[in-house]
Order: sequence, then structure tokens, then C-alpha cells
Amino acid sequence: MATSFTSETYNASSVEALRTKVRDFIRNTVIDAEPRPGCTLSSETLNKLREKAKKKGIFAPHVSTEFGGLGLPLRYWSDIFQEAGYSPIGPIALNIMAPDEGNMHMMGIIATPEQQEEYLAPLAAGEIQSCFGMTEPHPGTGSDPRQLTSSAEYKNGKWVLNGHKRFISGANLAGFCIAMMRTEQHGNSPAGATMFLVDMDNPGVRVGEQIHTVDTTIGGGHPHVYFDDAIVSDTAVLGEVGKGFEYAQVRLGPARLTHCMRWLGLARRSLDIALDRAETREIFGDKMYLKGLVQELIAQCEIDIETSAAMIEKTAVSLEEDSKTGQNLSSIAKVYVSEAVSRVIDRCIQICGGDGVSDGLPLAQYQNEVRPFRIYDGSTETHKFAISRRASSRRRKEVAAGAKYMGTAIVRD
Amino acid sequence: MATSFTSETYNASSVEALRTKVRDFIRNTVIDAEPRPGCTLSSETLNKLREKAKKKGIFAPHVSTEFGGLGLPLRYWSDIFQEAGYSPIGPIALNIMAPDEGNMHMMGIIATPEQQEEYLAPLAAGEIQSCFGMTEPHPGTGSDPRQLTSSAEYKNGKWVLNGHKRFISGANLAGFCIAMMRTEQHGNSPAGATMFLVDMDNPGVRVGEQIHTVDTTIGGGHPHVYFDDAIVSDTAVLGEVGKGFEYAQVRLGPARLTHCMRWLGLARRSLDIALDRAETREIFGDKMYLKGLVQELIAQCEIDIETSAAMIEKTAVSLEEDSKTGQNLSSIAKVYVSEAVSRVIDRCIQICGGDGVSDGLPLAQYQNEVRPFRIYDGSTETHKFAISRRASSRRRKEVAAGAKYMGTAIVRD
Amino acid sequence: MATSFTSETYNASSVEALRTKVRDFIRNTVIDAEPRPGCTLSSETLNKLREKAKKKGIFAPHVSTEFGGLGLPLRYWSDIFQEAGYSPIGPIALNIMAPDEGNMHMMGIIATPEQQEEYLAPLAAGEIQSCFGMTEPHPGTGSDPRQLTSSAEYKNGKWVLNGHKRFISGANLAGFCIAMMRTEQHGNSPAGATMFLVDMDNPGVRVGEQIHTVDTTIGGGHPHVYFDDAIVSDTAVLGEVGKGFEYAQVRLGPARLTHCMRWLGLARRSLDIALDRAETREIFGDKMYLKGLVQELIAQCEIDIETSAAMIEKTAVSLEEDSKTGQNLSSIAKVYVSEAVSRVIDRCIQICGGDGVSDGLPLAQYQNEVRPFRIYDGSTETHKFAISRRASSRRRKEVAAGAKYMGTAIVRD
Amino acid sequence: MATSFTSETYNASSVEALRTKVRDFIRNTVIDAEPRPGCTLSSETLNKLREKAKKKGIFAPHVSTEFGGLGLPLRYWSDIFQEAGYSPIGPIALNIMAPDEGNMHMMGIIATPEQQEEYLAPLAAGEIQSCFGMTEPHPGTGSDPRQLTSSAEYKNGKWVLNGHKRFISGANLAGFCIAMMRTEQHGNSPAGATMFLVDMDNPGVRVGEQIHTVDTTIGGGHPHVYFDDAIVSDTAVLGEVGKGFEYAQVRLGPARLTHCMRWLGLARRSLDIALDRAETREIFGDKMYLKGLVQELIAQCEIDIETSAAMIEKTAVSLEEDSKTGQNLSSIAKVYVSEAVSRVIDRCIQICGGDGVSDGLPLAQYQNEVRPFRIYDGSTETHKFAISRRASSRRRKEVAAGAKYMGTAIVRD
Repeated sequence: MATSFTSETYNASSVEALRTKVRDFIRNTVIDAEPRPGCTLSSETLNKLREKAKKKGIFAPHVSTEFGGLGLPLRYWSDIFQEAGYSPIGPIALNIMAPDEGNMHMMGIIATPEQQEEYLAPLAAGEIQSCFGMTEPHPGTGSDPRQLTSSAEYKNGKWVLNGHKRFISGANLAGFCIAMMRTEQHGNSPAGATMFLVDMDNPGVRVGEQIHTVDTTIGGGHPHVYFDDAIVSDTAVLGEVGKGFEYAQVRLGPARLTHCMRWLGLARRSLDIALDRAETREIFGDKMYLKGLVQELIAQCEIDIETSAAMIEKTAVSLEEDSKTGQNLSSIAKVYVSEAVSRVIDRCIQICGGDGVSDGLPLAQYQNEVRPFRIYDGSTETHKFAISRRASSRRRKEVAAGAKYMGTAIVRD
Repeated sequence: MATSFTSETYNASSVEALRTKVRDFIRNTVIDAEPRPGCTLSSETLNKLREKAKKKGIFAPHVSTEFGGLGLPLRYWSDIFQEAGYSPIGPIALNIMAPDEGNMHMMGIIATPEQQEEYLAPLAAGEIQSCFGMTEPHPGTGSDPRQLTSSAEYKNGKWVLNGHKRFISGANLAGFCIAMMRTEQHGNSPAGATMFLVDMDNPGVRVGEQIHTVDTTIGGGHPHVYFDDAIVSDTAVLGEVGKGFEYAQVRLGPARLTHCMRWLGLARRSLDIALDRAETREIFGDKMYLKGLVQELIAQCEIDIETSAAMIEKTAVSLEEDSKTGQNLSSIAKVYVSEAVSRVIDRCIQICGGDGVSDGLPLAQYQNEVRPFRIYDGSTETHKFAISRRASSRRRKEVAAGAKYMGTAIVRD
Repeated sequence: MATSFTSETYNASSVEALRTKVRDFIRNTVIDAEPRPGCTLSSETLNKLREKAKKKGIFAPHVSTEFGGLGLPLRYWSDIFQEAGYSPIGPIALNIMAPDEGNMHMMGIIATPEQQEEYLAPLAAGEIQSCFGMTEPHPGTGSDPRQLTSSAEYKNGKWVLNGHKRFISGANLAGFCIAMMRTEQHGNSPAGATMFLVDMDNPGVRVGEQIHTVDTTIGGGHPHVYFDDAIVSDTAVLGEVGKGFEYAQVRLGPARLTHCMRWLGLARRSLDIALDRAETREIFGDKMYLKGLVQELIAQCEIDIETSAAMIEKTAVSLEEDSKTGQNLSSIAKVYVSEAVSRVIDRCIQICGGDGVSDGLPLAQYQNEVRPFRIYDGSTETHKFAISRRASSRRRKEVAAGAKYMGTAIVRD
Repeated sequence: MATSFTSETYNASSVEALRTKVRDFIRNTVIDAEPRPGCTLSSETLNKLREKAKKKGIFAPHVSTEFGGLGLPLRYWSDIFQEAGYSPIGPIALNIMAPDEGNMHMMGIIATPEQQEEYLAPLAAGEIQSCFGMTEPHPGTGSDPRQLTSSAEYKNGKWVLNGHKRFISGANLAGFCIAMMRTEQHGNSPAGATMFLVDMDNPGVRVGEQIHTVDTTIGGGHPHVYFDDAIVSDTAVLGEVGKGFEYAQVRLGPARLTHCMRWLGLARRSLDIALDRAETREIFGDKMYLKGLVQELIAQCEIDIETSAAMIEKTAVSLEEDSKTGQNLSSIAKVYVSEAVSRVIDRCIQICGGDGVSDGLPLAQYQNEVRPFRIYDGSTETHKFAISRRASSRRRKEVAAGAKYMGTAIVRD
């Protein structure tokens, strides 16, 4: 499989220069444009921010230079995405927000040149948005991909798509959807799942009921999407027929990790807010930051943040080498970072007291933004299930290969 | 100090009968009237529910029979309040919601007969609402009562009140406020703090900016309240001059605990929602409730709920005996239950997946309702500070009284 | 089933008087006799302590007065057992240590008068010790009682016992064993499990290899015990044939809880040691107890201890009423308290620094004493499994009985 | 300051080859030589293992080739030390055990060529052992280096050392001690602390009482050491006079981290034991590894292990670049990994049930081995104190440099 990580033009120092530029942009420009907690960024403001980001040369850093991005390899994304995520609207301003970012990344790897021209280019330029159509109402696919029920049937040289999707983040504003559909054996391709590029104005596609969740940063909400005899041609097949589940992993490994990066940036923002608070407030005769019970909270935040950063960086390198190890680390990173980020924001709220749960500070809204991340892209429990099985499997193979079985208690006397 | 716990007419069996009546009312009547998550109960619906509650003989159970309540002793409140709290609007329907409930309780103990007639009676009947004016903007009183800055000055036989309060829950709808003010030495009364009953239409009282928080169940929000030369007479003094801090403890001990009771009811509701979900959903080839990773979540919820219930019950008995022990237990219970309830709802959200963070289920809103409780009425950290000091003090006294000091390591060889 | 809780002679005040007597005995007499951490109490010292306890009228408080005990009802045990557990050798000095204590309790309920005379009386008097033979090597019974493999066969009017038991605490010093054996249908009794009273000098009984564990307070270790054609008569059947599993619950409900009581006493001791340390040590310019990071540890200990105490007390009352509720609460209490006690001691070690992990203080040994309790008598995980299933079952019945199913997300728009 | 990281001969692939060699040695040779849990490795066995390690070319990997080591840069240590730590006696067999390893590392950086020849060379060759003399009895230095009381006085061209040290790991077997002493202003050197190389057979040095702790892997225990007019010459000064505290950081940064590496290896061993157990045991009708409640434990172990590994690796790179950042990360890594490793072993014990707390498996002993690590080299609380202050300081500087202060709640209406 081709890789999109072709740029060799970056090193630690040029990445640091980029990081500084992003940091300045976010802190000096983007933060001032943030909407009131719980409110939505206007498209007008968004467009202005994007224009500025383009001028500064920091727009779409993860996209190849061919499509107007910066061609930054995955191993260097973390610092940049964290800086962007320091503002809840930073990632959308830099065009590195889910689900577009993951879609771009995957399309850079598996789309045909024509598909890249038609869909990836305008997406990378911020001219259109996209969505990813996988999740279905129960008992369809959710945590378990094998429960996929939507399907595409090949009839008269066309694909006919039918199914009911939900939680399709960004669908309201999307120009196209990457839709995962069950497909039968087709030519040399085995039965399985296939991804299709479907225009949202396809007459067979309908955006249905909105699902109102506690997070607000993904423009276009999380609606239901209905496919009723939506007809597309062969050129709509993304990659190869039957490889949908495989591609989903290509997408999800990094996509989970970029969520971690962005939210970790927000965790850093939260801690800075709390540190500012602790620096100036007095309580029981001392500045708050001198109180050990506050230091406990701050130290735990630091530990959560730095361990998260380390785990993300290691995983990014591993994923770039496209290994199976990378997928397992990505699963572990997703669980760890999503829980850690929630803990960090929660503690920062405690430090800020009543203001922490009011909209006088943005922390309560941040907590609502990150809460769903412990469920989206595979819940903590689903990942733990997978992580555990992989551990058992790893050890089983070692023992089968001759490692000494160590589970028997010695009877002594 | 007189006690309000005079009824001797209850026993385990009559309490159980009351509990069943409340349970039926909540589950068969109140739940159907719940507003959509995040929305406010209309006063029209509220009044209808209260009428029904009165007819059923379950209204204001904590108020003495003299003022139309049921005269239920504190030791029996937990089961009743938990049943009410099973719905977020249950407590307000039964007139046992904060801050009114705590105000009624305290006024039952320390108000004069005239004050009880004028303020407690209509409050107990649900004809008016009240608020409690303690918290101030920094550097005024928050966690640390000694930082109180608002004051009442005695001039020409009248009290002149000045100060800026905030986070005054329910002030928008309140008929009167119990305002905590710093007072100088006055007659035989020492300098300190004094509580005043102040009508909200007093020309010197102004409800200011609203503070928007993530919780919604306390009608009337949490606004700023300004006292600008608000003039009241001697009859407005609640209890005695200079005993404000002492009375605050009289109020807070049980008030913290009734919060625990109500929210524990909501935790039980959350778990029932999650159990219903786990009972019917299938995942990876099994019903969810058969999956060990879900069982872990359920069992942890059960443990949190039952230990919380036990701690509340023990504390209620202890408080009823009005002991210092009761205050310490109440502090411990507040920290433990507020954290436990948050954990329970959080896990239930995980069990319900994407629906858990949407408004298709009420759980995400419940999480926002209970989040501030870890801050209100003394944050977890403030209580830990007090709990720790009391432990050190207890042991210090034991050692001073002859207990063997055990902190020296023995040097052996 | 008859109950052993017949005494009506106790009330809060007489229990408090007993508690004070036990407290004085433990703190003024027993603590001075404690062996060095990791070492065993000599039988000589033990006998002296028991003599003193008898003289003080505090020996075997849980045993009926008929057999020389104090006839204290279960609801009052907690305070007494905690005071005893303040020393690791306190419970054995008062003859309320496992496994004897649980055996006495069960025999008080289900043994025949003759059996009580022969076995319970000398056990209660501290003249002999006993053990409880249930656990077997894998794949025999451990967490799952249905895996019981040892069996008793009825031949020629005698029972012939065969099987391999292990982890039989106290077997080395025991005069008799209560052995759980699989039995076939017998007369009117169904097939199932049966308990037998077997003398340890029965020629068919052999104490085998010792199992060395990190705990040391149960005299006689945890050896293997082999039954090879051990022959006993009908009078050796404890209670009725076929009711072994039912009796195991009779025994385990309270036995689990008394473990909680005893270890909670040790947690209190640990905290006192840490408080003494924090009171006198200086670090970074302050006494340790004034440092917030230490206060965090102390407060968490207090919270763990008081919530444990509340849960134990509630469970004791519930168990005394012999309800199914009691068994469920006992399961929850066991998980919660065993984990809480471990956390408490762990934090106290942190407070005491390097001395905490040395034998200059007893804390490291205490941690080893309580560690197995999270496994013995049903591991945390086994109990969680049961707790979760009971919760699901409870809710399933409610819904079947008409409660509204609440697991369906509302689709809104 | 000179650096010891001079080798440029390693890359990922050669490190992987070395890792494989160490892995094979540990698993095929060292494990078979492990003493029974709680027992000590004989010096005879140790010497045999070291001979084999030398022959295999894996001895003293962290030491420069000049002194017979492999010259492995710090960034590559983690994988090697983890493999060694897979056996509790692996690190001593490879001569990378504390305190020698940290002493060698520091001496490689700050010792004179003569000192390196006399002390480092035989230490690196495993011919002698060493100890590090810093900790003192209260109120001397423990967590707080400023409390240092031992001192060296310059008299007649000699240094006269006096003081009482304790917890001097390895002192019983050491040939020399690196002793930290308070010194006055001396020539151009400021007053402060100075390190001295002191032969243990110096007439003024006496090894005193042993401190028995729960860990056993550091040969030579943790005794008291007394300096009574111990006289040494100028050549005994390690590095420069007055720079002792600075050097302590040079030593501690990596020394803390290598502890993390070694213990993480033991955590991996523990998980393998538990995985083996879960693979074969059946419970409630399934293999244990298929039970979700066990999967929860396994997954949490994996998460702890992989996040620890990531944090260690990032910190090692950072420390190698000798930055202040590295010291802060090292502090965070120490807290995180020491707690994570404890959790891992604790869960593995749960999976192994009764055998987990017996010496039939080594897990209970492993738990005792790692327990003190949360205290040694700066307790969790001491590090949290430092981590918190550094975070506050970092943010304070940012705000001073123009970053927007974010701690003020906006008053809205």
C-alpha cells in the first residue's frame, strides 16, 4: 500500500519553527475569535481565520504539498495539532479537524488520482467538508464492525446503496460522504465491506434527525443519514471493493491519534487557565498554588499531560512505520489519552471552583467537548476488549514458540 | 439549642409506607412530566405536581406538621429523598429542593415564632421560594468563611446591609433571602457574622448578573445579588446576632447531606437506565449485561451506590444527635457521595455509548447536574483540608491524653 | 432456620462500655505483646493474653453465653472487632479470629446440641482450634463452588471422605475440620454438598504441604489437606445432608464481614501511626501534617475508614435480619472494605517514607497481612461478577413487574 | 560539563540485536538461577552469571567501552534494562543494578581520570560494589536536600568527615561510598555540598544497624553508616567542591529512570505470568482470559506498561540532551512508572488468586520489591510538590512574557 508520508524535508528544527508559528497564530489570533462557551463558530469567522492561516503558511499541515498542504509526516503532527487544539476552534481553522482530517489522510493513501482531484483537493483547500458514514442504529454496526447492515448492490454496472446510518458527524455541512457498505463477492474481490464516495446531493441520500450531543466543535452535528437506493458508479469505489474494513483501520489508527493530539492541546489550555487562577487567588491565607491540595491536582495534571504526549509521539512514529504494533499502540493511546484529558479538565474545574462550572470560564464546556471522546472511535471498553485479546494472543504465541510457561504455582514444603 | 426533630410517630414500617408512596408518585407521575434534557420545568407543571403531592400526603416531608409538613425525623429522610431524587424534578415537586429545604430546616430550629409564621409557613407550603446569601466574589467568602466582606451596620435602631453576593442559587425567583453579614460587637453579642431575613423586594436589594452553570435543576439560577444600603429592622435578625457562622453549620451539615440523598437517587435512576440498556443490547455476540467489561462498570456502580447510602444513613443518625461527630461525618459523606455519584453517572454513560452523550437519553444532562456538587457547599478539596485537620487534632488529643505515640521507627539489629 | 442472635441484653450504652474495655485491653496489654513484624505469636504469649481477656470479661464476645461467650448480637460486633483488630494479634487474643470465629458462628446456628457440646464448646473456650475445608486445587472449587470435586460416599452406614483440599487456613493447629464434600442424593436429601465435622487425627486425614503466603496472622498457615478414605459416622454431618452450599452462605456472609471489621481496626491503627509521624516530622519547613499533599493522604484515609465503617454497620444489621439483602450487601462490603483497607495502609506507608517500608514500623507487614483479603473469601472480581448479576436481575424483575423500560434513546428533531 | 554519551556506533538495528541477546540470556539462563521468593542470590551464582554475561558481550552496557562496557547511549537503555529487569536478578547479573549503575554513570561524567581508574574501572568490571551516602536520620536530609547535616571540614590539607547516614543501600558489601557532605566556602568554591569518594575500610567509617525493608534485590541491604572523623585527601573530592547538589541531579535524573526501566521489565514478567495463568485456568465455564473482568485487568496492565515505556523513552532522549526539561520529565516519569508498576503487579496477583499471594508464584515478592520505589529517590509526594511548582513557574513566566492571563471569569448577562 502506498504511503502518504513522502516528505523528507522536515527535521526537529523546522518542525519547531512551524510549531511556533502555529502557537502564535492560535494564541494571538484564534483565541480572540472563540465563540462563547456552548455556541457555534460562524462560517464567516471561520473563513477569515482560514484565510489568515493560509497566509501564514500553516494551513492543512498534514496534507501533501501536491494538494496545498505542508506535507508534514505523521511523526511530527503531535506538537502541531496540540498547539492547534489549545483552542477548540484551532483545528477547524487549520483544517485538521475530524472527520475531514482523517478522510484526507486516508484519501491521500488509497484514493485514485481522479478521486484525489475531485474530492481531496477541495477538501484540503477548505472549500468543502466531508463526513464518514460508518455507525448504524442498533443492531447495526457500532463498536462491532461485523454488525454492519447497510449494503451496496451491483446492478447494471452501478452500485445501489441502501442503509441507515447515524452519528454521522458533520453530515449537515458535508459535500460528500465516505460510506461504508456491505458488499458481496465482486469479480476477484471477496465479500466484505466497501467504501464509497457519495455526494451528499445524491438523490438517494437524505440527512435525517439531528443527534444533539454535549460536544459542539464538530460543525454540522451528528445526524442520521439515510441511503435509499442511492446510485453511484464504479468510480465512486474508494480503493478496492471488499477492503473497507482494512481501510477503516488505515483511517482509524491515525484518526484516533489526532483526536488525542487535539484534545491534549485543550488539556494544556485548561491547565493554563487553572494555573493562572491558582497564581492569583488566595485561600485560607495563602495563594492557591502554594496549597498542597491544589498542588496535588496540578501535579496530577502535569503527569497526565506529559505521559499522554509521550504515548502519542511513540505511537505516531510506530504508525508511520505502518506496523501492526502501531495499531495496538493507537488503541492503547486512545484509551489512555481520552481518559487522561477528561481527568485533567475535571481537576482544573475543581481548582476554579464555582467559576469552573459556569460559563464565566470555558472549562465546563471543555469537559462536555471531550466527554464523548471516551466513546467515539471505539469506547474505552471496546478498546480494552481488543487490547486484552491482543496481549493474550501475543503471549500465547510466545509460549507456543518455546517460551517457558510460568502460570503454574510451585508446591513447596 | 432547640431541635426540630420532635416527631416520634415514625418507625421503620411507616417510613417504608411513605417511601412506597413517594416512589409510586415519582415513577408514575413525575417522570412523565420531566422536561427535555437541559430544559426548565414550567411553573405551571410544577404547581400541578405539587398539588398532586399534597393530595397524596407526601409534600414537604421534612417540615414539622405545624407548618403542613410530615414531621419526618432526619434519620428517615434518606430513603424518601432518594426516591424523590430519582427524578431531577422530584425534589422540587416535593418541596425538598435546595436551597429552600435547607432554609426551612434551619428556620425550624432557629427562627422566632413570628419569623416562622411569616417566612417558614409560606415557604413550606410552596407559596414562595427563598435563597441563601453567603458566597461573595473573590476575595470575599467562598470556601473560607473568614473572608466574609458584606456587612450589616446598626444605625438608628435599624440594620443597614451592604455587600456583593454571587452564586445565590434561586435568587431570581425568591421571595426572601437569608443573608450572611459581618457584624460588629452588638450588645452582649460578640463581633462575627449574623443572618438576616431580607425580602427580595427590599429597595436596597438588587438581583444582578446571572451565572450560567451546567446544572439546571435549581429554579432561578445562580445570580449575583447586590445589597446597597438595604435597611431591615431587628425582627429581621435570624436567631441571635453574632451567631451566623454557627448557624451556617446547623444549616450546612444536613443541607450537604440532603444533596447527597437527592443526587444518590439520580445515580440510582442512571444505573436503571444503563441496566435496561445492557439487558437488551447485543454486542460481540452477547447481551451486554453478560460482558465482563460491562459487569465491571455495573458492579462499581452498585458499590458506589450502596456505600453512599450506608454513609448517608449513618451520618443522618449522627447529625440528629447533633453531635460534632455528625458534622465531621457530614463532611466526609459530602466528599464521598459527590464523587461517587459522578462516577456512577459517568459509567452509565459509557454503557449507553453514543446515546449516553446525546439528549436521546438524559444521562449527559445528569452528569452536568451533579458536576457542580463536587464544588458547591464546600469543594472536595476544602472538605479534605478540614477532614485532615480534624483527624490530626483527634489523634493529637489522644496522645496528649496518654495514648502511646507510635510514629518512631524502631532501630533494630 | 434458627438464629444465634438471641441476646436482648445489649444496647448502645452497654456496647460502648464493652468497646471501652476491649480498647483498653488492646492498647494497654496486647500491643506490648506484639511480635516483631513478620514473626509469629508464641502460643505461650497467646495463652497469657487469652487468660487476661477472660478475666476482663471480653473473651469470645460473639459466642452465646451458653458456651462462655458474651452473646453479643451481630449488629454490635463491628465496634468491638475493630478495637480488637487495632492489633494484628488482638482478634486471636479475643478468640474472634478467622477461621474459628466463622466456624463458631455457623455451628451456633446449625450444629446439633451434641456437636455444640463436643466441638463448639472447646473451640469457644479457646481449648482447640479449627479449620474450614472448602478450597481445592484447580480445577476443583475455588471461586466457583460448583467445581467442588471432593466427595463423601455413604457405605455401610458410614461416610467415606475423599479429596484434596488446599489453602486450609489454620489446619496445622486445628483439632477438627469442617469439610465440604460433594454428596449424592441421600434419603430425602438432594444431591449437592454436605459439611462434615472431621477430627484432624482421623487416620484418613493428612495435612500436607504448607502454602507460604504474605500474611501471617492466621496461626497454622494455609496447608494442603488430603482426605484418603477418611471415615466418619452420621453424627459428623453438620446440619443436614445436601445443604452444604446453603450453609456456606450462612457462614460466609458474616465471616466476610468480620474480616472487614478486624482489618478496618488495623487500618485505624495504621492511620494513627501515620498521624503520629505527620505530627512531629518536619519537611520543607513545615510539620508534615500541615502539608497539603499529606493532608490529601490523611483525608482519603479518613474517607475510606468512615465509609467502610458505615457500610459494615449497615450490612451487619441487614445480615442479622437474615435477608437476601444482607448477603448482597455483604458481598459489596467485602469488596469495598478490602480495597479501602489496602489503600489506607498504602497511604500511611507513603506518609512514613523509608521507615514505612522497613520493619522499624509495622506498616509494610500490615500491607502484606491485608493484601490476601482481596482474594480470600471470594476475590474482588468474583464478587463483582455476582454483584453485577444481582443488579441486572433486580432491575429485570422490576421491568417485568411493570416498571417503565428506560433504555431506549429518544430520536428527536 | 562533559558528557559520557560519546558512542555513535549504535542505531535501532544494532540495539535490537543487543536486546535480543539480553533477552535470550535472561530467559534461558538467568531465570533458572533465580532464588526462591524472598531469598538472596548467592555471590557464587552471581559471579557465574556475570561471567556468562561478559562472554556474551552484554555486561555493563551503560559503561563506556574504555572501562569495559558497551558504550550504549542513554536513549537506548530502556529496551535493554527492561529485558534485564524481566528477572529480579537480571540487572545485578549485567551490572546495571542500583546503586552501582547510577554511581558509574555519574563517575563517567564527573570523576577525574585517576578516580575513574581507581574506582570506576573495578566497579564497571564487577570486581567491587559501591554505595551512595546521602540520606540521613530525621531531621537530616531525606526528601529535602537542604536538611543535610553531615559535614566535611578542611583541616591541615585533609577533609574530615562526620555524620550519620542511613538507608545506604548496598553499604554492607560496598568497597567505597560516594558520600554527600555539607562543606563551607573553600577557595573559589561556594559553601554547599560536596561529594567524596570514601573507602569503606577507612577507619572513620562504620556500617551500623541494618534496616530491614520489604525489598531484597539490592545486595547489602540498607544499613546505617557512621562517619566519625573519617579523613580523606583532596583527591577524594568527586568533581568540584560545592557542587554536590548539582551532581546529585546529574546522578538522580538517569538513576530514577533506570529504576523505572528495570521495574518495568518486572511488570512485563508479572503480566506474562498472569497471562499464562489466564490462558489455562477455567472459571465459571470459560477460560479466564475470555472473562471480561479479567480482560479489564489485563488491558489496564497493558495500558500501564506501554504508557510507561513511552514516557521512559521520551525522558531518556530528553535527559541525554541534558536539558532542564529532562529533569522535569524524569520526575514525572518516576512518579508515573513507580505507581504504574505497582498497579500492574497488584492486578496480576488478583488474576492468580491465592497462588498470587503465596510463594508458589513470585508475584507477592515482586510486589514487595517494587513497593519502596514509590518512596526511594524522592517519594511520589515529594515529586508532585516539585512538579507542581515547576508547572506554576513555567506558566508564571509565560504570563510575565506577555501571554494572556486566563484566570478571570467573565461576568455575562
